[in-house]
Amino acid sequence: MPAQTNRQILLASRPNGEPGADNFKLVESAVAQPGAGQMLLRTIYLSLDPYMRGRMSAGPSYAAPVEVGEVMEGRAICAVAQSNLAGYAPGEIVAAGVGWQEYGISDGTGVQKLPPTVRPISYALGVLGMPGLTAYAGLLNIGQPKAGETLVVGAASGAVGSVVGQIAKIKGCRAVGIAGGAEKCRFVKEDLGFDECLDHRQPDLAERLRGACPKGIDIYFENVGGAVFDAVMPLFNNFARIPVCGLIAHYNATGLPPGPDRLSLLLRHTLVKRLTFRGFIVSDYAAQFGEFIKDVGGWLREGRIKFREDITDGLENAPRELIGLLKGENFGKKIIRVSADPTKPA
Amino acid sequence: MPAQTNRQILLASRPNGEPGADNFKLVESAVAQPGAGQMLLRTIYLSLDPYMRGRMSAGPSYAAPVEVGEVMEGRAICAVAQSNLAGYAPGEIVAAGVGWQEYGISDGTGVQKLPPTVRPISYALGVLGMPGLTAYAGLLNIGQPKAGETLVVGAASGAVGSVVGQIAKIKGCRAVGIAGGAEKCRFVKEDLGFDECLDHRQPDLAERLRGACPKGIDIYFENVGGAVFDAVMPLFNNFARIPVCGLIAHYNATGLPPGPDRLSLLLRHTLVKRLTFRGFIVSDYAAQFGEFIKDVGGWLREGRIKFREDITDGLENAPRELIGLLKGENFGKKIIRVSADPTKPA
Repeated sequence: MPAQTNRQILLASRPNGEPGADNFKLVESAVAQPGAGQMLLRTIYLSLDPYMRGRMSAGPSYAAPVEVGEVMEGRAICAVAQSNLAGYAPGEIVAAGVGWQEYGISDGTGVQKLPPTVRPISYALGVLGMPGLTAYAGLLNIGQPKAGETLVVGAASGAVGSVVGQIAKIKGCRAVGIAGGAEKCRFVKEDLGFDECLDHRQPDLAERLRGACPKGIDIYFENVGGAVFDAVMPLFNNFARIPVCGLIAHYNATGLPPGPDRLSLLLRHTLVKRLTFRGFIVSDYAAQFGEFIKDVGGWLREGRIKFREDITDGLENAPRELIGLLKGENFGKKIIRVSADPTKPA
Repeated sequence: MPAQTNRQILLASRPNGEPGADNFKLVESAVAQPGAGQMLLRTIYLSLDPYMRGRMSAGPSYAAPVEVGEVMEGRAICAVAQSNLAGYAPGEIVAAGVGWQEYGISDGTGVQKLPPTVRPISYALGVLGMPGLTAYAGLLNIGQPKAGETLVVGAASGAVGSVVGQIAKIKGCRAVGIAGGAEKCRFVKEDLGFDECLDHRQPDLAERLRGACPKGIDIYFENVGGAVFDAVMPLFNNFARIPVCGLIAHYNATGLPPGPDRLSLLLRHTLVKRLTFRGFIVSDYAAQFGEFIKDVGGWLREGRIKFREDITDGLENAPRELIGLLKGENFGKKIIRVSADPTKPA
């Protein structure tokens, strides 16, 4: 059943700053055969996420980097193509860290079977997967939203930001998003139901944000970093909470930017306003996955949470799309459709 | 009984950067007579604290600034000199926000009677007062020390830092102090029992700190800011906690320092290592005062906590001593003895 050829995308070299096409290499090889206790997975949907930029660099982070010459790391929704592994049958749909390739061998480590209630199955890479849990756990555990408070989140049309704002609304907060471009802002405000969404590409963001947050900011969900932070900082209320889960604006940085040292300013605000900055990584909250699926799955069914996907066909486009993702060119959760989705009509 | 003359120190002008003698003005006036429901307080010990620098500036902070021409703000241990206020009798010892003056009128607002167990009475301005509660509440609530962890604190011979490190030791931590000069470092290590104390005036602080923290840093009690932060940041362990209660090194700053923008670096560390930065002000923990006095008072009696005071005679010296305090020239809790302590033999 499997094709004779497996296409893979390898890390060809480490980027210095913004990654380019030459940092990736598409190779073809024969599809491997699963050994005893193994299965062959066919990749259907590959998730592209900003954290992948970190894996391309050698610097210390919370996870080991991809080595040059290795298949790029990534989580995907797969169909079991062949199985010599007890408990897995051909045709079953699973989530697995198969990487940027059309076929992968797995011994079951890190593999999760998808419950049949997760439809579309690609949601397991988005609102019902890692980005959704990031939004849910970071907002509820660290952000601790209370009715009447004001939340601000960047990349508000994206996989994490869109869920953060909608959960904040469910919790009774005023939700103010920041996004790039009029179309995304319209989507965030009109389709997702945020109270306000500001285009960071327009001038005077700080002033517009002040206008959109007349009672100050109680929660800033930090998934962007960069210039947005400057607009947010003066508006913090006492005892504001800042979950820090991502800094997309910094991922391509090759060093510290020159300029005034804003660390002093941050510390001063932290002290005077008793801010709480807390970094987190979604795996810190793995134990809350069941509760998350119950809550967010329910809100999805009730139509209280909407989720937009940005799907591109073809593994060969993954490098270009990751490069674009880091520049905010995607519109919704970025996914590569590597092969046909058997749960959808053709 | 009161002298005919009251000496007061007023804020003469707002400093731009480091305060100078000309920002203060010593004036003499007749001692006021207490009206109905008032009492006259004689200042014995006036506390000098870094926060006072903030009160000299007009910028927004967590408390209103002292107005130019007003008596400098400050808390003191006083004796009741005359009383028309029910519940207060001449000779009683109280703590009160009387300010930088020899005599003050009070209606009892913010006045606390000193229990006779607080001896020396000046300890109510130090280890058993605001600096002690700052150390206790910030360390236990935010720092959450666990046995075997490593704590670092700056200004380690000072009123807050010395108590932070000693409580950390009681909780089973490795306590590493940073202080200015060999004499202070010797005191911190030998007299206070810290595991190590590093002189920030010597070169290679970052390297020496790395050597003193072989298992990394789990708690950094931030009461200094500035260059110490740079040495600490690379050593944070995952899930480290950073209570932020003071930034002495920044208080005289007139703007953001130029140079690389370390905010990016801080955010990156916060994310990757899941740090928690939390600002606090001692009054946030006022409700813990009883527990604090019980614990720290007990540790003092048992000799498990030692506390050093740096007492200077004469209200007229308060400006010079505050200026010195902001440069780290004090050695221990800085106190001005404004008049004789009736609880001590002459």
